[in-house]
Amino acid sequence: MQWKNTQGVSWVAVDWGTSHLRIWLMSQDNQVLDHNSSGQGMASLNGAAEFEQVLFDCLQSSLVDDDTLPVVCCGMVGAKQGWQDAGYAAVPHNPLQYQTPVALPTKHRQLWVWVLPGLCQQQPADVMRGEETQIAGVLCEHKDFTGVLCLPGTHSKWALCCEGEVVSFNTFMTGELFALLAKQSVLRYSVMDEQWCDEVFHQGVSDGFNNPSQFTGALFSVRAKDILGSGAAQFGKARLSGLLIGMELAGTKPWWQGQKVMLLGDSLLQSLYKLAMDQLNIDVVLMDATQMTLAGLTAAYERQG
Amino acid sequence: MQWKNTQGVSWVAVDWGTSHLRIWLMSQDNQVLDHNSSGQGMASLNGAAEFEQVLFDCLQSSLVDDDTLPVVCCGMVGAKQGWQDAGYAAVPHNPLQYQTPVALPTKHRQLWVWVLPGLCQQQPADVMRGEETQIAGVLCEHKDFTGVLCLPGTHSKWALCCEGEVVSFNTFMTGELFALLAKQSVLRYSVMDEQWCDEVFHQGVSDGFNNPSQFTGALFSVRAKDILGSGAAQFGKARLSGLLIGMELAGTKPWWQGQKVMLLGDSLLQSLYKLAMDQLNIDVVLMDATQMTLAGLTAAYERQG
Repeated sequence: MQWKNTQGVSWVAVDWGTSHLRIWLMSQDNQVLDHNSSGQGMASLNGAAEFEQVLFDCLQSSLVDDDTLPVVCCGMVGAKQGWQDAGYAAVPHNPLQYQTPVALPTKHRQLWVWVLPGLCQQQPADVMRGEETQIAGVLCEHKDFTGVLCLPGTHSKWALCCEGEVVSFNTFMTGELFALLAKQSVLRYSVMDEQWCDEVFHQGVSDGFNNPSQFTGALFSVRAKDILGSGAAQFGKARLSGLLIGMELAGTKPWWQGQKVMLLGDSLLQSLYKLAMDQLNIDVVLMDATQMTLAGLTAAYERQG
Repeated sequence: MQWKNTQGVSWVAVDWGTSHLRIWLMSQDNQVLDHNSSGQGMASLNGAAEFEQVLFDCLQSSLVDDDTLPVVCCGMVGAKQGWQDAGYAAVPHNPLQYQTPVALPTKHRQLWVWVLPGLCQQQPADVMRGEETQIAGVLCEHKDFTGVLCLPGTHSKWALCCEGEVVSFNTFMTGELFALLAKQSVLRYSVMDEQWCDEVFHQGVSDGFNNPSQFTGALFSVRAKDILGSGAAQFGKARLSGLLIGMELAGTKPWWQGQKVMLLGDSLLQSLYKLAMDQLNIDVVLMDATQMTLAGLTAAYERQG
């Protein structure tokens, strides 16, 4: 990992997910000195020793003599299949105030590594890991936040907060279903092209929202249109995105109706969800997911003090 | 392909799908002399020459001197990616009366091969290939059938017939979605076990039917229960089957409400759909899918004279 600036690193913030590793080198006054990312996510690593070696290789140039370097991590690194199981805190829970990092034993004594636990809910059964740190980041700016958060992704999360506590949440497999259908199903031939059409997307949102039970029927129609088609682009990707997001918004209507929704995501997903939410007149505020992750990790580091 | 009886074969019926090849050796009076199947489906073959060679190898022992042997095929063998595109007849259409086989050129002059075309519908766009022959088989027994047919499978088909004509149909990707989710998604760890529980299946049917928009949320809950679980079996396969079939039955309610449904399928799928239909008080009659395929192929052969 190439760094431009490794001078005066006071601590390190790490978002270590299934497919990506993101690292921020932080100064004593919590400014970002440098940041970097790689594809060395949980899915590509096996066992604690590999995780530690990857981290050590990334941070070697930031280490000074025998000084210890605190590293605060969130994400799938704390899953059973990750570096070490960091467990889950049960809702209701305020991740900004009470998220207690789990210290990991390391062979390199200069590395002082903590991992943040996830959140769990018994009824209905649900878990999150990584998103709780983004929520903590939101709570840094809005201490006693009451309202709804939407965090789209492979597994989209909807969380209901009450005076700073996450009281319940719900996961939708929207992103994973999109990837499976777009890459592995009979639809893959019809979703390959990158062409996009907002109108087709909006029609998909409308159909998915109003007729969720027709979802798998609407899917096959994408393929059939292609088989019977005149060769005209039918924008399969926009249609599939729209149907899936529309269905998610139908399923979460009790969450967002009459509420302001805080939408956290990467720029592409956020813009798609924003388009769909505007269409359904959902009152939405955009927040930057990466900045919230960093704010949540910073708050956890400061709490450890 | 091993045969017990290849004496006096008058013609051959073939159901050649994506993953399977099924062959019946027929006598002059349309009795089955012998039958066989293999995994040499369309997906494992490439180009017309390969299809013909496979068929020739299977039938070699039934050929007598220079006599021609008529072979009537249905299924994906007639798709663009199959032996040769046999096209689609447009609904409304009576496949028993008007299904016109397409003759294929062959290098082996003894083989006289026909392929039956599929059915298509422009609005909403839909196609079927193979199921139209099963429907023709049903029409052999019920000439002027008016009612609803359900043909569960990788791509479940629902067809509305009026006085023997298929007037419209609708495809649901239920089976393909089940396979993708059970084998390739994060649920694969929770759906592996073969244990089954009717009660869990029925709850899934009820949830999928009543809350289709919650589908992808209900899916993730299967995984979360496993992560948080006490180790007790939660019957993920029964839950996933139930949710998907329940959602299909919600989407097809306008088709089956107040109607008698003829249910054609292999025995496992048929019994699951029957369980779900009984639960929703749907009036259902079971028919054997394989026998209907054979009846449809026989009718097509007789029509060719």
